[in-house]
Amino acid sequence: MPHHYELYYWPSIQGRGEFVRLALEEAGADYDDVARRDEKAMFRFLGDAKSATPPFAPPFLKSGRLLIAQTANILLFLGSRHRLAPASESGRLWAHQLQLTVTDVVAEVHDTHHPIATGLYYEDQKPEARRRAHDFLKERLPKFLGYFERVIIGNRKGKGHLVGSSITYVDLSLFQLIEGMRYAFPRGMKRAERDFPRVVALHDHVQKRPRIAAYLRSERRIPFNEDGIFRRYKELDI
Amino acid sequence: MPHHYELYYWPSIQGRGEFVRLALEEAGADYDDVARRDEKAMFRFLGDAKSATPPFAPPFLKSGRLLIAQTANILLFLGSRHRLAPASESGRLWAHQLQLTVTDVVAEVHDTHHPIATGLYYEDQKPEARRRAHDFLKERLPKFLGYFERVIIGNRKGKGHLVGSSITYVDLSLFQLIEGMRYAFPRGMKRAERDFPRVVALHDHVQKRPRIAAYLRSERRIPFNEDGIFRRYKELDI
Repeated sequence: MPHHYELYYWPSIQGRGEFVRLALEEAGADYDDVARRDEKAMFRFLGDAKSATPPFAPPFLKSGRLLIAQTANILLFLGSRHRLAPASESGRLWAHQLQLTVTDVVAEVHDTHHPIATGLYYEDQKPEARRRAHDFLKERLPKFLGYFERVIIGNRKGKGHLVGSSITYVDLSLFQLIEGMRYAFPRGMKRAERDFPRVVALHDHVQKRPRIAAYLRSERRIPFNEDGIFRRYKELDI
Repeated sequence: MPHHYELYYWPSIQGRGEFVRLALEEAGADYDDVARRDEKAMFRFLGDAKSATPPFAPPFLKSGRLLIAQTANILLFLGSRHRLAPASESGRLWAHQLQLTVTDVVAEVHDTHHPIATGLYYEDQKPEARRRAHDFLKERLPKFLGYFERVIIGNRKGKGHLVGSSITYVDLSLFQLIEGMRYAFPRGMKRAERDFPRVVALHDHVQKRPRIAAYLRSERRIPFNEDGIFRRYKELDI
């Protein structure tokens, strides 16, 4: 019997849930994006005082009796089940290591618009956001993209992939990172991309995968917006 | 033959490496904290353009041919090898999920003194640090500690542990988080702890484990200082 999954994530943003959605889509998995039709179901899990394995925050994935949270952890699980990661221990750890570096970038992107407090509005931390975003674009983004470029070069088994000889969840996540950065920082990203042609080529390759292409055209793909992690604020993009 | 490990991390701070050191110590593992006697060896790995699995940053662990980076990933690996995590898939994922939440807290603690840019000095972002630290102590810390308290309560197999019926690397990491917070924010932490007696009891339990107690007394334990993640700046602690 094929696996059935329930994904729980904020229904109006791509956010961290999108990294999981992309893996489920590429796997051709049977999944229900529950909160998009029933947001209260998500809050029931978050508020369930009796749960033995409560999530701290969305996204979380239900698979039979398993309830798994933390984006990279969900991908670790799906990677093994759907051949979206190497089967060997060393390969699995290497893919996961890269995913945790994507996690670090995503957290830094979030903090470009929320450098002071997650609980405050962007409007209450605009000057600080400006300073942080500029540092991110100037110092951090080239460092991270340069790292992924180097990993692609160093992967002698692959044809432009990050890990091994075929697509993994890390490739999907790097695609999403590039998509998000292009949305949030069109100017800064255009400048940064020039130096990392293999990263861009991998993005393009993922975008053309038949299941990913179909997903991106579908209504299941929520458009980027200013409630998510990747937000377009013109004043931050220099 | 017992495993031998080489740990690579900044030699003058606890930092993220300390979560790995505590796991190695509790496991009674044979390890060499390489950079404490030869810092250049660490930079050789970071600068090795030929490496197929380059680390983005320390800490990283060498075990035979494996080179593993990202703190939580190293602990995932050590947890399986040294029974510092459950053997079942569901248990391993649950422990790792909690560790990734510790990772999130650690990143937020780092940003209390570096809210704008990792590459700038604390002195160049003091007003912002003050705002962020106050938000962290008021909003975020109680939320995180409350979550771990709830996890301990919900763990019916354990005697005050986070996961299962015996000690895991997550318990060790929570101990380190409490130690670090007590050093960095003695006032704020004293206030916060009152509401989370099980978290404090788990900290005390870990502190008394024979191997951990011996380690904490040894010269292998680097004292906290203002170059690490947990820094004592009086003006941030209210």
